[in-house]
Amino acid sequence: MKRFWMAVTLLLTAGVLGACSNLGFNDSSESTASSGTKTATYQTTGTVDSGMYQGVIKNGRYQTSKTRGLATSTNTQSGTYNIKSMENGLLDLAKKQFSTSKYVFQEGQLITEATAENWLGRKSKDNANGLNPASNGKLDEDTRAPIYLQTLLEQDFMTQSGSKLQLGGIAIALGMNEYDYYQKVKYGATYTTHISDAKLVSEGESMAAEIVARLRRLSGVGKNVPILVTLYKNAGSDALVGGTFFRSVLSTSGSDLGKWSTIDQQNETLPTVNNAKPLDSNVSTDFSDFSEQIENFFPTLAGVTAQAHYQDGSLAGLNISINTQFYSETEIMSFTQYVATTAQKYLPDGAKIEITIASTAGTQALITREAGAKGFYTHVFGSY
Amino acid sequence: MKRFWMAVTLLLTAGVLGACSNLGFNDSSESTASSGTKTATYQTTGTVDSGMYQGVIKNGRYQTSKTRGLATSTNTQSGTYNIKSMENGLLDLAKKQFSTSKYVFQEGQLITEATAENWLGRKSKDNANGLNPASNGKLDEDTRAPIYLQTLLEQDFMTQSGSKLQLGGIAIALGMNEYDYYQKVKYGATYTTHISDAKLVSEGESMAAEIVARLRRLSGVGKNVPILVTLYKNAGSDALVGGTFFRSVLSTSGSDLGKWSTIDQQNETLPTVNNAKPLDSNVSTDFSDFSEQIENFFPTLAGVTAQAHYQDGSLAGLNISINTQFYSETEIMSFTQYVATTAQKYLPDGAKIEITIASTAGTQALITREAGAKGFYTHVFGSY
Repeated sequence: MKRFWMAVTLLLTAGVLGACSNLGFNDSSESTASSGTKTATYQTTGTVDSGMYQGVIKNGRYQTSKTRGLATSTNTQSGTYNIKSMENGLLDLAKKQFSTSKYVFQEGQLITEATAENWLGRKSKDNANGLNPASNGKLDEDTRAPIYLQTLLEQDFMTQSGSKLQLGGIAIALGMNEYDYYQKVKYGATYTTHISDAKLVSEGESMAAEIVARLRRLSGVGKNVPILVTLYKNAGSDALVGGTFFRSVLSTSGSDLGKWSTIDQQNETLPTVNNAKPLDSNVSTDFSDFSEQIENFFPTLAGVTAQAHYQDGSLAGLNISINTQFYSETEIMSFTQYVATTAQKYLPDGAKIEITIASTAGTQALITREAGAKGFYTHVFGSY
Repeated sequence: MKRFWMAVTLLLTAGVLGACSNLGFNDSSESTASSGTKTATYQTTGTVDSGMYQGVIKNGRYQTSKTRGLATSTNTQSGTYNIKSMENGLLDLAKKQFSTSKYVFQEGQLITEATAENWLGRKSKDNANGLNPASNGKLDEDTRAPIYLQTLLEQDFMTQSGSKLQLGGIAIALGMNEYDYYQKVKYGATYTTHISDAKLVSEGESMAAEIVARLRRLSGVGKNVPILVTLYKNAGSDALVGGTFFRSVLSTSGSDLGKWSTIDQQNETLPTVNNAKPLDSNVSTDFSDFSEQIENFFPTLAGVTAQAHYQDGSLAGLNISINTQFYSETEIMSFTQYVATTAQKYLPDGAKIEITIASTAGTQALITREAGAKGFYTHVFGSY
């Protein structure tokens, strides 16, 4: 059976790191404001923010994935929103398991590009390791065998043991399709198979078990290295916000998976499109009150949109974009202070807030509030 | 004599404010984290940063200049760098005179667009108020009468007196041409008249005296409202950094100007072009050490450039732009922490630092350090 166009995206997977126990790594500081430490070949980035990981630098260069080029080229197919959101989200979930003060972050080095390509493919005579189902020969939206697993993301967490750096944990995200887009003929119209949540859970959970078993067989992965596996549901291709995580499991040793947990996340854009019912009417009202104050500040209307992120039913974060046409530096300064005080007055307490003010000339100002904080930080991009 | 193309730029000047003593303004808080206060017609922006002014909002809209559209259209002729730098710089100079805790900022409302056009023009039969010299009929670079005054910027500083808002101070910047660009015939080649520093000082000082006398005659400007007049030297049209202020004077009452002070400012871009000698070899060496560490972090080279700003011979600020092609969110996070720790290690202490990390997709991260501060603030632009 001929295989049609298949949007399989590979993320951040690269050459097997066979020598984990031999990495030279000296004198790493526990201090979160430390500069990077250095030996002949290994170094860490250092960090000035205790909530951020240090990253691994090898021979003076950041340890990127070998599939980096591939990921770039397929970036637009799966949507930048999904990819960014998945990377961010997996890192956040991993932080609960692998503390930023004890672990150093490394881009995924265990799953090679060729391996990932096989795993993300359909099962077939040529590809025994394909995690997606073999084609059943059907092309109909409801009867064909869809691609469940779209993307695979690996993040590694290293610990220091004496002067060495060794693998201390792995986090995996399986990017699952709620909507599987496909063509019946090459360059033909795009059709969509919708996949139910129940099916995503059952398919994702069995793929996770298989992936953990396979990872344990890789050299460099100890029997007792904790592996966090998470299931992520890609947002549809027309969404202006990424998808959400819905399940996670921690394998502490062997191929034993442990107990699955539900992750309760929801994303939406505000204002909602076509008068759709917002996830939380209070948040939506607060946001529209805020927008109203902002939009009329200048003679030319400013556009205000937001990505809202909910965890366990509560607003966890708001990313607000304000687009306007003014350009004067003092106008931007006044506007920034106004937006910050308006945000303080109208936006919900507690949630993390990022407000970006942009004009046609690019980003002009940034306003942020950390989760749980009261005060806002403002910055107007300057020029001498 | 026919007037040829003349790049006269107007900035932020607008309708005469005749009713300063009748502005409704209630209950403004001295607190720098206050929200904007409101009456029927007037409001302030509020501010969350004590180093920033509150701005004036009238009938729910920011009090912009009536020449705003004009300023936009002529923006590119005079160079965005000059305009941004002049606006920022004048506000910084004004802050020393008019404290952000006592004064509210208002975009210039005294000099109307028509007035500014006249003042910036050449003196002629039709334009008795032109501050630039009448044409002498010559077209030669060295013998013609150049345009000395290119731009005029007004900023107003309001004080609250009971429930009213009244003019408490004025800051004026005269944008002077070191290089006056002109055409001998319409659409012809561009020629340049170079103007000496001594000439800029003498011309600027006499124009300043005239402008103060004229401002004092405007209704709404009291006899004792302090007027800060500053002279700014526009950078050449090919510069990647704005010009600098070189003289200032404070008129406290009447048309008495007071004593002129010299302002010692210098700007440069780093790395210097064509092996030009840097203004400060230590700063230049620190910056190139920093750049070297950054440029090789990723497989694709990152471009690192800076605007350096010096005051009284010392580095006062560095605006660093890093352009790179990577896109992964975790790569950006690691890079940001690395850049911040590298900045801490290599860049000079004391100066204000702003580092922007951009890719083709726009601004990705921001790293800042306030003047005199030790720690760096980092922010990676997120997406849900």
